[in-house]
Amino acid sequence: MKTLLIIGIGAGNPEHLTVQAIHALNRTDVFFLLDKGSAKQKLMHLRRAICERYIDHRRYRFVEAASPERDRGGDYTASVHALNQAKQRLLERLLDEQLADGECGALLVWGDPSLYDSTLRIVQAIAAGGRELEYEVIPGISSIQALAASHKVALNRIGGPVEITTGRRLAQGQANTAGSVVVMLDGENAYQHLQAPDEHIYWGAYLGTEDEILIAGKLADVAEQIEQVRQAARRANGWIMDTYLLQPPPGDED
Amino acid sequence: MKTLLIIGIGAGNPEHLTVQAIHALNRTDVFFLLDKGSAKQKLMHLRRAICERYIDHRRYRFVEAASPERDRGGDYTASVHALNQAKQRLLERLLDEQLADGECGALLVWGDPSLYDSTLRIVQAIAAGGRELEYEVIPGISSIQALAASHKVALNRIGGPVEITTGRRLAQGQANTAGSVVVMLDGENAYQHLQAPDEHIYWGAYLGTEDEILIAGKLADVAEQIEQVRQAARRANGWIMDTYLLQPPPGDED
Ligand SMILES: C[S@@+](CC[C@H](N)C(=O)[O-])C[C@H]1O[C@@H](n2cnc3c(N)ncnc32)[C@H](O)[C@@H]1O
Ligand SMILES: C[S@@+](CC[C@H](N)C(=O)[O-])C[C@H]1O[C@@H](n2cnc3c(N)ncnc32)[C@H](O)[C@@H]1O
Repeated sequence: MKTLLIIGIGAGNPEHLTVQAIHALNRTDVFFLLDKGSAKQKLMHLRRAICERYIDHRRYRFVEAASPERDRGGDYTASVHALNQAKQRLLERLLDEQLADGECGALLVWGDPSLYDSTLRIVQAIAAGGRELEYEVIPGISSIQALAASHKVALNRIGGPVEITTGRRLAQGQANTAGSVVVMLDGENAYQHLQAPDEHIYWGAYLGTEDEILIAGKLADVAEQIEQVRQAARRANGWIMDTYLLQPPPGDED
Repeated sequence: MKTLLIIGIGAGNPEHLTVQAIHALNRTDVFFLLDKGSAKQKLMHLRRAICERYIDHRRYRFVEAASPERDRGGDYTASVHALNQAKQRLLERLLDEQLADGECGALLVWGDPSLYDSTLRIVQAIAAGGRELEYEVIPGISSIQALAASHKVALNRIGGPVEITTGRRLAQGQANTAGSVVVMLDGENAYQHLQAPDEHIYWGAYLGTEDEILIAGKLADVAEQIEQVRQAARRANGWIMDTYLLQPPPGDED
């Protein structure tokens, strides 16, 4: 029997690790790091730094591999399925070749493993495929919670709903902006298309890291500023990770 | 100047505390514990146990007060507003009388402070009222993340949305069950009213505690069982805290 730990490590702030996650790190023999190219180098460094900071022995090893990339053309869901299958084969090979029976491996997942992350689905598929594999999931602070904490704002209005969605869906008019909406995975400044100038936006990039940027205000007032700051930051860093909360104007419901 | 820390402590598992939260506990001079009557005694004990476990000095004190209760009749939002105003006055008095200038107070918030919790709103109102008060927000693992981790399930389908809502709204047909829905604050078994027998439900009570109960399956198959287990557990413990994820049947989208 082999064990695999799926450990949420927070979205950038190493102090967001939980005690449970730290215990899990210390149980791990092999950390599997699936590298996603130079843009994400910084995130790999962060994973290694977390291990160095929180593990109190040196009996662990890293196994690195280049992660397959998603085919950017064609249908989104289909391309994610294909990507997940490629990742599954890679991880199966790594588990077979690099993790001995009785050992404990780990995957360090950005933020919380339950949100817009394929790791759980992939490990589930591997375990269902008949390998002797036990796995555990350790929750982590998501970028959404880091956003809310940095802006000191509640996600919901009193008794109201919160929709977590993607930039893609927001741009397609598929979000219910009558309530609070949290947008992730937005490469296209989808907030610019909203016909709701009174909405309030709480935007954050590189949350929890030393590069954190926060902008908040009426959408009509700050949308341009966010787009400019976003573009400049992406250019300066080579990549960006940002998320935002949209809320109907205070007083509507609250 | 006084400082107030709003610290998310997770939803029941003391190992869900973050390193950041532990540092915040150790900075605190006064913990304000607003007691909500015997049903919540256990939660107060948990707060004290967390302090004992994670604070490495004994230079802190507890200030306890009976929390005002919400008027259960009438309009929900109005009753929450009235309750929050009463809580604000109580907290203002405690800050004036029990926290000295230069000291650091803390409120230990269940789960994450950004979700269905009035603490942030109340402290905001106090700070806006002109007192010399600085406050910080420290995120915590919410019961939603504890639910997903215990069930080893992702909240979203690939590229799909997640709606976080209340039992009240679900019962009123105000949730979009085409996507994933997380239900909190459900005192009425609202899932029983859903006309969607193929929906999958992942239910959890007392998540993260030694009393944790998990049930998952097709809504049509497990709804009765959940209702019975829920009723028995509430009777045995005197109170219940539960939350659940509803998802369209696999294959629909995924
Ligand atoms: C693939 S999803 C993973 C989400 C992750 N599981 C979580 O819980 O935060 C990546 C998206 O999360 C958001 N994100 C992750 N880390 C972030 C950070 N440090 N600052 C801002 N947004 C972040 C961005 O919207 C990004 O497009
Ligand atoms: C007032 S809300 C507070 C939510 C909290 N801020 C959080 O992040 O989890 C209380 C609701 O959270 C859910 N909840 C909190 N703790 C829970 C636990 N340990 N197990 C199951 N549900 C829980 C229940 O739905 C409950 O009605």
